Amino acid sequence: MLLLALWRRLGRRSSAAGHVRCFSSAQALPSAEDFAARRREDALLGEIDARYPAFMVWGCNTDVGKTLVSTGMAAALLSPGKSQKSHVLYVKPVQTGFPDDSDARSVTQRIDSLVGRSESIFLSNRTMWLSDEASKKAALTKRSTDSSGSWKNSANSVKSSSSLTCETLWSWCAAVSPHLAAQQEGGGASDDELRKVLRSSLWEFGAGASQTGRSWAFVETAGGVASPAPSGTLQCDLYRPLRLPGILVGDGRLGGISTTLAAYESLLLRGYETICIVIQDMGLGNNQHLSKQLHNRVPVFVIPAVPKNPGDDLAGWFHDTSSTFVQVVSLLEDAYHKRIQRLREMPKKASELLWWPFTQHRLVPEENVTVIDSRSGEFFSVYENKHGRFAQQFDACASWWTQGPDASLQHELAKQIAYAAGRYGHVMFPENVHEPGLRCAELLLQGVGRGWAHRVYISDNGSTATEIALKMALRKYAVDHGFLTNQGDKKPDFKVLALRGSYHGDTLGAMEAQAPSPYTGFSQQPWYSGRGVFLDPPTVCCQNRKWQLRVPERYGTIATELAWDAREDVFALGRDNTELAKIYSSAIEKEIMSSQGSLGGQTIAGLIIEPIIHAAGGMELVDPLFQRILTQQCKCHKIPVIFDEVFTGCWRLGAEFGFFDERLFACKSAWELLGCKPDIACYAKLLTGGTVPLAATLATQDIFQAFEGASKLDALLHGHSYTAHPVGCSAAVTALEWFKDPSKNPNLLPGTSRLQEQWDPELVAEISSRSSVERVISLGTLMALELRSTSSSQKGYSSLLSSGVVKELRQELGIYTRPLGNVVYFMCGPLTKPSVCSSLLRRMLKVLE
Amino acid sequence: MLLLALWRRLGRRSSAAGHVRCFSSAQALPSAEDFAARRREDALLGEIDARYPAFMVWGCNTDVGKTLVSTGMAAALLSPGKSQKSHVLYVKPVQTGFPDDSDARSVTQRIDSLVGRSESIFLSNRTMWLSDEASKKAALTKRSTDSSGSWKNSANSVKSSSSLTCETLWSWCAAVSPHLAAQQEGGGASDDELRKVLRSSLWEFGAGASQTGRSWAFVETAGGVASPAPSGTLQCDLYRPLRLPGILVGDGRLGGISTTLAAYESLLLRGYETICIVIQDMGLGNNQHLSKQLHNRVPVFVIPAVPKNPGDDLAGWFHDTSSTFVQVVSLLEDAYHKRIQRLREMPKKASELLWWPFTQHRLVPEENVTVIDSRSGEFFSVYENKHGRFAQQFDACASWWTQGPDASLQHELAKQIAYAAGRYGHVMFPENVHEPGLRCAELLLQGVGRGWAHRVYISDNGSTATEIALKMALRKYAVDHGFLTNQGDKKPDFKVLALRGSYHGDTLGAMEAQAPSPYTGFSQQPWYSGRGVFLDPPTVCCQNRKWQLRVPERYGTIATELAWDAREDVFALGRDNTELAKIYSSAIEKEIMSSQGSLGGQTIAGLIIEPIIHAAGGMELVDPLFQRILTQQCKCHKIPVIFDEVFTGCWRLGAEFGFFDERLFACKSAWELLGCKPDIACYAKLLTGGTVPLAATLATQDIFQAFEGASKLDALLHGHSYTAHPVGCSAAVTALEWFKDPSKNPNLLPGTSRLQEQWDPELVAEISSRSSVERVISLGTLMALELRSTSSSQKGYSSLLSSGVVKELRQELGIYTRPLGNVVYFMCGPLTKPSVCSSLLRRMLKVLE
Repeated sequence: MLLLALWRRLGRRSSAAGHVRCFSSAQALPSAEDFAARRREDALLGEIDARYPAFMVWGCNTDVGKTLVSTGMAAALLSPGKSQKSHVLYVKPVQTGFPDDSDARSVTQRIDSLVGRSESIFLSNRTMWLSDEASKKAALTKRSTDSSGSWKNSANSVKSSSSLTCETLWSWCAAVSPHLAAQQEGGGASDDELRKVLRSSLWEFGAGASQTGRSWAFVETAGGVASPAPSGTLQCDLYRPLRLPGILVGDGRLGGISTTLAAYESLLLRGYETICIVIQDMGLGNNQHLSKQLHNRVPVFVIPAVPKNPGDDLAGWFHDTSSTFVQVVSLLEDAYHKRIQRLREMPKKASELLWWPFTQHRLVPEENVTVIDSRSGEFFSVYENKHGRFAQQFDACASWWTQGPDASLQHELAKQIAYAAGRYGHVMFPENVHEPGLRCAELLLQGVGRGWAHRVYISDNGSTATEIALKMALRKYAVDHGFLTNQGDKKPDFKVLALRGSYHGDTLGAMEAQAPSPYTGFSQQPWYSGRGVFLDPPTVCCQNRKWQLRVPERYGTIATELAWDAREDVFALGRDNTELAKIYSSAIEKEIMSSQGSLGGQTIAGLIIEPIIHAAGGMELVDPLFQRILTQQCKCHKIPVIFDEVFTGCWRLGAEFGFFDERLFACKSAWELLGCKPDIACYAKLLTGGTVPLAATLATQDIFQAFEGASKLDALLHGHSYTAHPVGCSAAVTALEWFKDPSKNPNLLPGTSRLQEQWDPELVAEISSRSSVERVISLGTLMALELRSTSSSQKGYSSLLSSGVVKELRQELGIYTRPLGNVVYFMCGPLTKPSVCSSLLRRMLKVLE
Repeated sequence: MLLLALWRRLGRRSSAAGHVRCFSSAQALPSAEDFAARRREDALLGEIDARYPAFMVWGCNTDVGKTLVSTGMAAALLSPGKSQKSHVLYVKPVQTGFPDDSDARSVTQRIDSLVGRSESIFLSNRTMWLSDEASKKAALTKRSTDSSGSWKNSANSVKSSSSLTCETLWSWCAAVSPHLAAQQEGGGASDDELRKVLRSSLWEFGAGASQTGRSWAFVETAGGVASPAPSGTLQCDLYRPLRLPGILVGDGRLGGISTTLAAYESLLLRGYETICIVIQDMGLGNNQHLSKQLHNRVPVFVIPAVPKNPGDDLAGWFHDTSSTFVQVVSLLEDAYHKRIQRLREMPKKASELLWWPFTQHRLVPEENVTVIDSRSGEFFSVYENKHGRFAQQFDACASWWTQGPDASLQHELAKQIAYAAGRYGHVMFPENVHEPGLRCAELLLQGVGRGWAHRVYISDNGSTATEIALKMALRKYAVDHGFLTNQGDKKPDFKVLALRGSYHGDTLGAMEAQAPSPYTGFSQQPWYSGRGVFLDPPTVCCQNRKWQLRVPERYGTIATELAWDAREDVFALGRDNTELAKIYSSAIEKEIMSSQGSLGGQTIAGLIIEPIIHAAGGMELVDPLFQRILTQQCKCHKIPVIFDEVFTGCWRLGAEFGFFDERLFACKSAWELLGCKPDIACYAKLLTGGTVPLAATLATQDIFQAFEGASKLDALLHGHSYTAHPVGCSAAVTALEWFKDPSKNPNLLPGTSRLQEQWDPELVAEISSRSSVERVISLGTLMALELRSTSSSQKGYSSLLSSGVVKELRQELGIYTRPLGNVVYFMCGPLTKPSVCSSLLRRMLKVLE
């Protein structure tokens, strides 16, 4: 906001070009108001025009000739004799040393002298914003006074002429790094603003110019790839959400192989594509070595060294380089067309070759396939062929509940993953130890396992973590209750106690712990037999601004009228002394006793629950009182208790471990809140910050000891090849540390392990009062609503009731959701700003109208 | 070998230092013979002394002051007044511009003038090898003539004096990049040689000096981090197997933030630790911005700018920087001690906190825990506290059969993984498409799926791939045989046909397809019921130089005498017409018919086999004739066929897909060889080149269509959160392309998709003739032997017979193996040189004596 105060001379147009011949463009010039509007543009709806090629121009260092390369490319595109006219946009988002240095002016002047003399060409050069100092100096030196006067709009002639539009977005006077210039002279643009304005420039240029010939844009960065932007953010991070492909200008001098490759790798690490490298020939053959190192996949072009004492216009040098730049441009054009062609064909190929999980392919026409070109933090960049654009969509399903990173954490994860892959690749784990595996275990025990867990068993995904947990629980029960020693010939029929609607994974063992559902039918899994005793849980939800308890009929009618004003009341430990607690308790006890020993040796040998939220089961909030009592009673019967926190763990519900009562500040984790500890718990999904599969099953020492013995055959004989793979463990270490670090997670409430409320309670209450909404829950990073159905066919997993809502959110409002039947949910990350969440909620309200 | 011819003046010692005072060292100076021996040293047994701190000195560019920083650190260590004496080794492995430039001489001279005047200090400077040109010029300029004459061995006094030993290993005259100098002047050192000699220098220094005070070593690189070494290999790649922690000398100039960070990231990407960054103060505050970007995790030290016209000895500058260098050295010392302390405590912590798969913790005393510090290609770097060293061990279990990369591919995988993480993190897959997922599917269909598969279902690991395959097969059978439409109330009891000894994973569904074993007992998995009809397979193995068929008794005695001289004969298609084929055929038919419909609706609804090799079942080679006939007959009965190629696929057996008959050049993949195609096949393990978990289940279009329907409920309702995660898919794309690229895989036989024989048949035959060996197999990347047991307790999974062999291989011979009962195996990667394999086999022969 300080920056806004410093914002002056908004939209000032200055042309520092001495020889601006005329200005023209099919699009209207942005006015001061336009520019202000660009800065206010909705960040959720950023988009990039894909109908014309646009490239970043990067340098491996400062002073390697980026602007000359930009000029060379522009000249190749604008040079005489082209049957089709070209429109080139050159953008310098950040210029320091202005007005003495103006790369945009330099491009304009050189193109004027190289091309303009022989070709009818419309040239323009303008600077959008100048610092006070830059402005004063520009006035003094008269280098930017001949600006607006020379603009001439000749919209009719533009169709038959090529054009060069040069834009400098922000200019400072000091010839230093932009972050220092902004510190010294003020007026620094925030990253969001800078991206918005740049996106607008590209969009407006495309909208105006694309129908009148070939359009091209080059965005030239300042300094090296990792030089700071005005905000201090590295430029390679700043521009990442746009992810334009790039040209890297390398260094042909001694040491240049190293700086060029290192810069290339820094771009790679951030997910950029580098189409080619251009270097000056300093007689060292750097280009050959670079080509070899890059396995010839990135072409390296050589241009003659720039004369040390260049004349006025480097005309000779440009003449010598022109054929090379024609090649460069041809390569870029080819890369652009190949990219777009591939993006276009992807939906068809995907429909033909892929077999998507949980998808009836017949119901997914090609045009409904989403082409995800990249992700930056919470946002997808989606290619939309219909609109010829890359659209930004908020990933509101958190990619199947795995996502947590913002753009900074995503980059940090990429770095740490790269480090682990470079250091270890994968190394085997049993009887071995490596740093990421050990550190991951330590962090889990200090975090989610604090106070109860002693051992960490690492596997690949939620489903394997659950299978392992079940094996642990059943062994423990068998040991404690004498089933291993007194077994005889007849094996007991071990069952687990579980809640109807809970979900634990898709491998057979995990499915056996789930109640019958569409997932478990004969046609899906003929081997499923349902090895559980399944209870109907009471649930809670927000309806018309009230938190309402819903108790299954079997528990009697006493509690059906219960409701609370605040969500926190649902979690109050005081509820332990209510009449309802007694009802739950006796119902549960009856269930355990009646199942135990019945039906030919049936024995309840474990309890498995998803704490608080049944996720895949439709985002149901289970009454925590019920789960607390259930856990306590199983403990009394020496039935091992498994918390399946694959979904709920690692900050998903607003706290590191499961749910955290906001009023219980002393409380450190869910088991303390629940008043009971699990014996075993499973973690996955957010564990790696949403990068690669990894899972952990934590257990008490008691559980572990049930597998100790003299023989290897007593050990838990379960494992996966990539157990504790260093890449996943490093990602987990990075994410676990980041989320709980107050310097990195602005959502952390000071002194706690809890997140501030991300979903504005007032907006959530508003949604709960809409007539089309059956119920709402919000907790931690989750906000879910169930649409009210009017017929029974609109209920359940296969319901299509939500498809209209989902379609509008995706196509019109930039929100990628994936419904669960008629439940639509938004899921953000632990780092997502509440303002972004509110923006999502307001869009939902709009759709619900 | 050409290089050997150019090798001259071996071991020449030259001191180019003008003021060498005296030389001394507790260790003997290496002679020419020593130096030659260093170069010949066994590459399998490289080790690094961990008893003293050794660091790389890297530069973010050339000419940023690396040598001054090295000097400053040496001065801080050697400066007067230390109670404990210091011994510093400075190594410049590669020097160009010699003798005009000699960084080692410069360090020697400066330390002499800075420290030597006030302190009794032993200085030495020598150059191990010079090119002809460098040698001539040195003679002309008399800069290296006063060499050997000035050495003085005063071993008695060394204990009370500090010492500086400067070594230049290779020197060239031209002041250009080492790869150009080596091209021009000859005598380039190979990477292996250079590493060997460097390792020896470090080892000899440590052996001699470590008992007489503090020892330190600095290895100063040439140019920037990614500048080429003499061989052309980048230095950051060259030195990677040693993985010494490093100091990065950054750049304080404009653009220096970018080049410093980019260099840091290039080191990170290769798994190096950078302890701190040192930069000159150019007034731009680069250090502050660097600190912020590195989240203060890598300290950044600032030193004054080096005067542009330095005097003789920069005495003033060194004076000004001395306190900073004392801090730098103190930080390095601290980092060293913390690192070693952590390595020491890791076995204990691991024993306390981890729960290893397939491990009886009681049988693993702390001292048996292997601390894996890193991997480079096929080699682990293992910290051995007992010996105070990092030892190199060949990962002969290929980390549970996942590994394929050499050091180059490991780095490429790290890069591509980093790119995918930077570009996508993870994005959800159903109804979506992204480039790595689609490309991975395309490559699998063009490769292992060519000619039969049409769809790719991506999941997380071998076990999930198998569960998915089973669901596919059972559905297809149910559809084809009318079980979905005519089902009624009674569900059929679906079984799969499988071979005894085969293994398909540890989740319950995969286990159900396995015959009862120690893994499946009640104490391990009470829910296991064994949903298979299990056949005993005939096997083949090499015994006493003959390939011998072993047929279970039930098939009669006719074939028990069959044996072949060559392994290829076992795979000959001509065997289809033998008497044995008829015996197999009728036995299989009988089994299918007798199981079908018996026992209350039991139905064989699928076949699942591991083609050719039963891996976890003890590395048994199953008679391919038997598997071929089995597959054909199931097809006749419309029983879907699953090939579980989790172990055998992706080059593990010497071809992209399963096994490849060397005589059938027209033959492109295993199904052609077998004369029958699977309907479904599973891939994992090597799929990602051994980096992260990922699996693929390929299927025919017929299988896919069994899930098509009007309702979502007909779809395959199975999925995992990280389905087709871009990081894993990118790794798979990289590995799949690399292994079959003749320019990258030297083991590829020209024009084929097969690898040359990696295990020397003569050595394998020799092993098979040893009395202690029961049987041997070798195929593709696998060589396995079963030790002959003399009692029944020595057989099976829990046998400890092999422990002596394994211990000797690990502790004495640098080979990390993990036995399967009394089966010991070596597994290399598809890129491993046959010479390395031979070296392993010779060691095995030694152990078997």
